[in-house]
Amino acid sequence: MKNFFSVNDVPDLKQFVEKAKAVKASPFEDKTLGENKTLGLIFLNPSLRTRLSTQKAGLNLGMQVMVMNMGQEGWALETRDGVAMDGTTVEHIREAAGVIGQYCDVVGFRSFPSLKDREEDYNETLFNKFMEFCAVPLISLESATRHPLQSFADLLTIEEHKTVTKPKVVLSWAPHVKALPQAVPNSFAEWMNRAEKEGMIDFCITHPKGYELADEFTGNSRIIYDQEEAINDADFVYVKNWSSYHDYGKVISTDKNWMIAPDQLSKNTKVMHCLPVRRDVELASAILDGPQSLVQKEAGNRLWAAQTVLKEILTSDS
Amino acid sequence: MKNFFSVNDVPDLKQFVEKAKAVKASPFEDKTLGENKTLGLIFLNPSLRTRLSTQKAGLNLGMQVMVMNMGQEGWALETRDGVAMDGTTVEHIREAAGVIGQYCDVVGFRSFPSLKDREEDYNETLFNKFMEFCAVPLISLESATRHPLQSFADLLTIEEHKTVTKPKVVLSWAPHVKALPQAVPNSFAEWMNRAEKEGMIDFCITHPKGYELADEFTGNSRIIYDQEEAINDADFVYVKNWSSYHDYGKVISTDKNWMIAPDQLSKNTKVMHCLPVRRDVELASAILDGPQSLVQKEAGNRLWAAQTVLKEILTSDS
Amino acid sequence: MKNFFSVNDVPDLKQFVEKAKAVKASPFEDKTLGENKTLGLIFLNPSLRTRLSTQKAGLNLGMQVMVMNMGQEGWALETRDGVAMDGTTVEHIREAAGVIGQYCDVVGFRSFPSLKDREEDYNETLFNKFMEFCAVPLISLESATRHPLQSFADLLTIEEHKTVTKPKVVLSWAPHVKALPQAVPNSFAEWMNRAEKEGMIDFCITHPKGYELADEFTGNSRIIYDQEEAINDADFVYVKNWSSYHDYGKVISTDKNWMIAPDQLSKNTKVMHCLPVRRDVELASAILDGPQSLVQKEAGNRLWAAQTVLKEILTSDS
Repeated sequence: MKNFFSVNDVPDLKQFVEKAKAVKASPFEDKTLGENKTLGLIFLNPSLRTRLSTQKAGLNLGMQVMVMNMGQEGWALETRDGVAMDGTTVEHIREAAGVIGQYCDVVGFRSFPSLKDREEDYNETLFNKFMEFCAVPLISLESATRHPLQSFADLLTIEEHKTVTKPKVVLSWAPHVKALPQAVPNSFAEWMNRAEKEGMIDFCITHPKGYELADEFTGNSRIIYDQEEAINDADFVYVKNWSSYHDYGKVISTDKNWMIAPDQLSKNTKVMHCLPVRRDVELASAILDGPQSLVQKEAGNRLWAAQTVLKEILTSDS
Repeated sequence: MKNFFSVNDVPDLKQFVEKAKAVKASPFEDKTLGENKTLGLIFLNPSLRTRLSTQKAGLNLGMQVMVMNMGQEGWALETRDGVAMDGTTVEHIREAAGVIGQYCDVVGFRSFPSLKDREEDYNETLFNKFMEFCAVPLISLESATRHPLQSFADLLTIEEHKTVTKPKVVLSWAPHVKALPQAVPNSFAEWMNRAEKEGMIDFCITHPKGYELADEFTGNSRIIYDQEEAINDADFVYVKNWSSYHDYGKVISTDKNWMIAPDQLSKNTKVMHCLPVRRDVELASAILDGPQSLVQKEAGNRLWAAQTVLKEILTSDS
Repeated sequence: MKNFFSVNDVPDLKQFVEKAKAVKASPFEDKTLGENKTLGLIFLNPSLRTRLSTQKAGLNLGMQVMVMNMGQEGWALETRDGVAMDGTTVEHIREAAGVIGQYCDVVGFRSFPSLKDREEDYNETLFNKFMEFCAVPLISLESATRHPLQSFADLLTIEEHKTVTKPKVVLSWAPHVKALPQAVPNSFAEWMNRAEKEGMIDFCITHPKGYELADEFTGNSRIIYDQEEAINDADFVYVKNWSSYHDYGKVISTDKNWMIAPDQLSKNTKVMHCLPVRRDVELASAILDGPQSLVQKEAGNRLWAAQTVLKEILTSDS
């Protein structure tokens, strides 16, 4: 594994889950693997789970970890080529990425979409440029269109908690007060489609009309516009808000009925969310605090997802 | 020791001071104790001494340390239960604390009071919720009503510098330009009361009328409203501003006479302050820069206080 | 070496470059040198290269590294003596430096000039006070008037890429949209003058009239106001903007002709810049992206410069 940007960087999904389980069982087994290796974690946007879990993953592998919040500690980066930098951006991403790559053996990079220019966001311009110029292996800590460490942790959580061979997994849109990126649902759909192809799960999506995600992520997934029907007998419901892809970055529904009520859930249905979650806006407190919630398990598994990816990169590297 | 929140978490005060002296004498003796253990330091408010001394304490014990400034690197946390999170808070403390606890073996947490709602502040709502949901041992890096690492360092400093068996210790209010929390004086009073009970010191408090601290912290301590009388022949004067507890969070005096003049001090009196200090507002430069000041010693002892507490938690844990 | 503030702290320049080459050849050879030693990196201003390269340098030497951005994580420091601190500054640099020095074995400190009060800036008041009160060895991570780690990395880069025994090095002013400090060109001139004295290079400076740097840095360096003439047959052109020293802190030219065009360069001329660089304002993209640019090499050498300085301090110390 050279970079970790999407599920396409994973050659064998089932094996990758098994590797994560092995890492989770023996977290400190590979402490010499990262000796004299430095992991740089560069954030253009805020982070809690991703920051702490990836930092700890590196430390568990014996790496040195340097965390940098560009917005607070550094300055604004220019990403466009061919413009005279006479405005507010202080450094071009070409220079910044090249420099950071020289001080690190592996880099993690987070950058949210603008939600203004769909083409630019979906071309992953910023991430791709960073990847090109930093030269060393790059791990996505969430890019404009994907959050693969989250999706990997989600898949691991499903595999750990499934009670049938091929569980039914539903991605269910939820209301929110802000316009959010499509990165988490895109990435989840991409990973679940792959898992479905490998016979691990059954997958479908439910959301209000107008919230269709980009085809490149949802592929042939069934979309069921009736939430009640979609989540019926689901083994796992993955709750998440996102803004519109087609009317790009817009909030086109705030329908509170899309927040699943506790009595809508079958008793065997597990509920997932990537966090942070708006309580009683996206997801009812009664569900979050009850036995059907897996949200803390998912967050815990972020560590093993990150450590597995890092281990994979470090071992491919040597 | 499971958590470190107040002096009540310390079973034997004299022994605890002796432990700190031993740690100070051999800082690197326990470097294997923290192996494969992670200390997370979570700040909702700024910090200099607490941040650096606790980080170094963890490192001295061989721990991995992750520092997170929620305000800058993360986002606003919701602390109220039963409200729909449709405002500016992004994540509930239930989720955040639960997640952080999963990545850490010990967590340090700092959160200042609002100084608006006394009941909420004095119930230590935020700290208690964090403690409940993070599940792992929690160290207060200053909460709404207490700053126990500071008080422990102060007691250690007094023990190191006393020239009589039972020195006279005076907590003396000082003017300031802002309304400050009562956490430091509360905590100091609580620790000194305990030390007095154990026969280690004599303790009294001096401040303008209206600045009485909460009974739960001052207990039966003498309050002497005449500063001159109170500090007369004191072995240690602990200078600190705080805002009113009774007229909650208000500045009710800015009387400059309450800043102790150098010639008011007996020559054997040592002067203490937790820092940061407003020079020539709270405390005269001539005192701070002179031989009677212990402020740097106190700050230096913050390291040994933190390391002793961490060691105690790590050894109780195993 | 006790402190690293200017080229005057380096007893033997040629030997110092050789030491850096040795460190670069075996980065992890001295991993036990920093055992149980703590490096504190204190930033009053933003940083990318300096922060990451110095942090990594400490880690390579086995040190513990604590990074603190005072503006974001801490508070405003008072630097003036003899004033009552009744304004916005929260802590005096006397206290802050004293405290930080107690938790660290070596401290790195960054503080930019005000560009308002030349005397204060050029007296290096802030840096000198920090050095006085922190008591442990202090490394400049850029002060009001100098950036010695940058200049050391620049000299190393020149030594690695020279093709003649005594290359011609030209410092060339460039336009910018903001008023920048003189620290980088001052420091570069100071190091190049010393290198010239030791027979390592030939040095001259070119800039528009009015941009003369302070004599204490440029010494007897030739100033050539005709850029074309100055850079003709140069082996190295060091491009940098700075604001006026004489009309202190002012931008007195924005003449775009001072941005070197690719066709103005001889084909053997190497181009240098400390970064961050404003593309197509200070330096043409075509040069930055072409084979004559050494900017990434300089940035890479920042690590070895920092590690050499740290090693020197650690070995002098023991």
